[in-house]
Amino acid sequence: MSREEIKNIDPLIHAPVRLAVLSILAAVQQADFSYLKKTADATDGNLSRHLSKLEDAGYISIKKTFEGKKPRTFCSITKKGREMFMAYLDNLQKIIDKQKGDV
Amino acid sequence: MSREEIKNIDPLIHAPVRLAVLSILAAVQQADFSYLKKTADATDGNLSRHLSKLEDAGYISIKKTFEGKKPRTFCSITKKGREMFMAYLDNLQKIIDKQKGDV
Repeated sequence: MSREEIKNIDPLIHAPVRLAVLSILAAVQQADFSYLKKTADATDGNLSRHLSKLEDAGYISIKKTFEGKKPRTFCSITKKGREMFMAYLDNLQKIIDKQKGDV
Repeated sequence: MSREEIKNIDPLIHAPVRLAVLSILAAVQQADFSYLKKTADATDGNLSRHLSKLEDAGYISIKKTFEGKKPRTFCSITKKGREMFMAYLDNLQKIIDKQKGDV
C-alpha cells in the first residue's frame, strides 16, 4: 500500500482539467485559452476557474493581450509549477510501482 | 501531450480516498471499515460515501456482519474493480511516460 504517496497527491494538480492544462504547458512555451480549452475538453467557465486556481497557487502565469480588438489569453507554466508537476508525476509513479509490486 | 489518456482517467477511481481504498483492496483479500478509515485517512461519513460509490459501480463488494453486538463492515475488490483499477494504473503510466518524454 502507498498511504504516504496517496496523501502526497497534490489536489491542485490532480483534477483532470488541471492535469491536462499542466501537461500541455509543461511541453510548450505558452498556450492560449482556446487551445487549452479544445485540448483539455473544457467549457469556458470551467477552464477559467481551473486556470485561476493554478494561477493563485503560482503554478502558471496568465497574460491577457489584444490582437486588434480581440482579447487573447496566454498561459505558461512557472518554475514552481513545473517543479510541483514533476513531483506530482514522480509521486504517481511511486503509487503505480507499489501497486504493480503488491498486486 | 496526453489528451486521450487524460480523458480516459476513470473519475470513480481518481478521487484520492477511492484510490487509497482500491490500492488497499487490490493487495488484500478483504479489509474492514476501520482499517480503511485509518489507512485512507478519512472520516466515517466521507469513507461511507466513497465506499457506496465504488459499490454502486460494482468495483467493490461490502458485507456487513456482527461480532457479538458490534457491527463490522468488510470490503473487498471485485473482478471488475480490479480490472478497472489495473486499467487506471496503466493509463496513468502512459500519462507519466508521455510527460517524461515531452519535458
